[in-house]
Amino acid sequence: MRIVDLIRRKRDGHELTADEIEFIVRGYTHGDFPDYQMSAWLMAVLLKGMSGAEIATLTEAMLHSGVTLDWSDLPGKKVDKHSTGGVGDKTSLILAPIVAAGGLLVPMISGRGLGHTGGTLDKLESIPGFNVNLAPDKMREVLRKCGMVLVGQTEQIVPADKKMYALRDVTGTVESPALICASIMSKKIAEGIDALVLDVKTGSGAFMKKESDAVHLAELMVDTGVRMGKRMVALITDMDQPLGRYVGNALEVIECVEVLHGGGPADLRDLSLELSAWMFYLGDKTHSVEDGRKLAQQMIASGAAFAKFCELTALQGGNAESLRDRKKLPQARSVREVRSRGAGYVQSINCEQAGIASLVLGGGREKKEDSVDPAVGIVLHKKVGDAISAEEPICTLYYNSDARLGEAESLIQSAYRIGNEKTAAPTKLIRRVIEGKRT
Amino acid sequence: MRIVDLIRRKRDGHELTADEIEFIVRGYTHGDFPDYQMSAWLMAVLLKGMSGAEIATLTEAMLHSGVTLDWSDLPGKKVDKHSTGGVGDKTSLILAPIVAAGGLLVPMISGRGLGHTGGTLDKLESIPGFNVNLAPDKMREVLRKCGMVLVGQTEQIVPADKKMYALRDVTGTVESPALICASIMSKKIAEGIDALVLDVKTGSGAFMKKESDAVHLAELMVDTGVRMGKRMVALITDMDQPLGRYVGNALEVIECVEVLHGGGPADLRDLSLELSAWMFYLGDKTHSVEDGRKLAQQMIASGAAFAKFCELTALQGGNAESLRDRKKLPQARSVREVRSRGAGYVQSINCEQAGIASLVLGGGREKKEDSVDPAVGIVLHKKVGDAISAEEPICTLYYNSDARLGEAESLIQSAYRIGNEKTAAPTKLIRRVIEGKRT
Repeated sequence: MRIVDLIRRKRDGHELTADEIEFIVRGYTHGDFPDYQMSAWLMAVLLKGMSGAEIATLTEAMLHSGVTLDWSDLPGKKVDKHSTGGVGDKTSLILAPIVAAGGLLVPMISGRGLGHTGGTLDKLESIPGFNVNLAPDKMREVLRKCGMVLVGQTEQIVPADKKMYALRDVTGTVESPALICASIMSKKIAEGIDALVLDVKTGSGAFMKKESDAVHLAELMVDTGVRMGKRMVALITDMDQPLGRYVGNALEVIECVEVLHGGGPADLRDLSLELSAWMFYLGDKTHSVEDGRKLAQQMIASGAAFAKFCELTALQGGNAESLRDRKKLPQARSVREVRSRGAGYVQSINCEQAGIASLVLGGGREKKEDSVDPAVGIVLHKKVGDAISAEEPICTLYYNSDARLGEAESLIQSAYRIGNEKTAAPTKLIRRVIEGKRT
Repeated sequence: MRIVDLIRRKRDGHELTADEIEFIVRGYTHGDFPDYQMSAWLMAVLLKGMSGAEIATLTEAMLHSGVTLDWSDLPGKKVDKHSTGGVGDKTSLILAPIVAAGGLLVPMISGRGLGHTGGTLDKLESIPGFNVNLAPDKMREVLRKCGMVLVGQTEQIVPADKKMYALRDVTGTVESPALICASIMSKKIAEGIDALVLDVKTGSGAFMKKESDAVHLAELMVDTGVRMGKRMVALITDMDQPLGRYVGNALEVIECVEVLHGGGPADLRDLSLELSAWMFYLGDKTHSVEDGRKLAQQMIASGAAFAKFCELTALQGGNAESLRDRKKLPQARSVREVRSRGAGYVQSINCEQAGIASLVLGGGREKKEDSVDPAVGIVLHKKVGDAISAEEPICTLYYNSDARLGEAESLIQSAYRIGNEKTAAPTKLIRRVIEGKRT
């Protein structure tokens, strides 16, 4: 088998066999052929697509490029959630404690923020002492003790993805649904889970602005998971404005704690409950999603979910006190209110611009190597549909340096479109549900 | 300007600007960005295509990656011919002397054979002493003295093509009409010519098996040449069976000499005259192609063309005596006749298989690094439409080693399809003529 022939076959739109795909993934990971052949193949994949069988084989080959986690000695179903990323998207910190408190195991491996979107690891690390880099034994111990563990990617898990993603990033081959699907699914399946709930975002703050693109990717991921024997569902959810009201790392932890105490903004609470409900259902903890929703509400009402989050925080070296007293989380030195220039109703909020506003304050990363400031961010006082008068505060910016404060203010001002038309708050946070067939 | 953005733009089907294409060609030639980005861009070009304006800009940018030849101090129009390559295609050695004898200048840069197709340089080098690697001053002197010069590509001419072609060869990006066009046209225009006649082959022995593909490439090349101020024509010609009867380097020189003496097989003679006629016409030597044809015939009848070939051979260090006495050309030690198994008529000859038969005898190259044996090859006694009886010789193989003789015999046997149906010899050697508008 020669790589140049496989490039040609994909270029000409043929379906590759399992052997051929394994040859490519193994060969590239081992350095048997150079980057310039892989990038030509990746571009051919992007432009010619892959069948469901090809994507499943690619996912499987990537999965087996490294170690996979095995929790079969721990009783109970293992479930996880993956989000394609958005602004203010902090549901992991809410649903993982809910689901673990309800008796399922959640071995969650998360990522960091990049560009306008935040990352779970950055949020967790705003809790003083919280360690997301656990050795395998420690990870197992935490999962066994409290039913959940929240860690970062290691070099040992799906090394093929690390090498392929670095190449895709510089060769214009990121935006392939087949490659995105295999990248996400290989990493999630390596976690040793039985079921996966996908939160596929669409709208101005999402990677996929068009709902049809989000649905397409969701269908590919659900199909791939089912082919690999996992129970799957994808929720297509709105990211046309930030989720919740807080954007920024420590600020988002605060909002999560509010939801775990039964409060917090309705959109964040509802989505967290819905995702938890599906995790309960797919993990065979409840007989229906409706029952899953009730169980999730109970876990909040009883305080079990918040207690679980505190327990986890302590187990991973974090200061659980800071979850009870927000003064013990990192605090920004200064605040600035951004006020409305006009009066009327919030017509729309450009979610990507809002995310970038938080980034320029230091709360996000422009490049992977950048560090983030855990204390800074934005609190949104107005969301789509809210009435607003002139000079009323839209947002409060939390910042430590005024170097790019003006830029952040401008971004917020231009992100908010305010007009006379009375607009309703968006009611359809969950736009579609794509459920995988039980195998 | 960032290369990754230009990869994305081409991937998404946008037309690149002249600045963007120049940035890519210059940057790649200078090593400003790595092969893996170039190969992704090349694959995007292959799958998304290029507009006529883009191809002309790419050709121009590649042309200016190195030195271009300038013969403006030599009076008279400079013309050349380029063939996309075939089996037994030896017209360059006939038409260049005809056209030079008729008073035009022919500064021809040619290539070597690869795979089933032969190369002009290999044929010339079968003439003892013939040197195709001339220093620029020597090239100018030969062209000035005898009106023609036949040399190989140098490192200085279109270095971008050398680097790009090496990458395309291993990344499945050879078969792009836009890239093939720019590769050919940049090298031809670097020769400092006023007019170019293209011989675009189609059929079983051609790179483009389908006539529509050949026409498409021909149209791109004619359009590109016209955009760059050259007079252009493309002849779409048949390569469904070998051209002439001799395949192999010294053997083909012998057949060329036969044509220059007024003999030789009709197909080779007719095509050589037709290409010469167009060169005379586009080079403003005659007022019509018909007059060009007559002038070409005169150059043969008068002996001027043969004398010109002898003159050139001597100027380039070759033994012109060997053109008068074929015994002085390299001789194969052994011959083997391949006989027909059945009786009837030759229905077809798989031209690629015939070319490979010559290659396995040592007359061609499997890899660029291989050397060729000038003496070996095939003489075809039967062509399409010829009647044949059982055990009658089809071909004679000329060989020096019997290591792969059996393989060559099998290839010839399977290349010839002999049946009862009385088939006519193909009459349409020139299938179409695509003439560029005079600018």
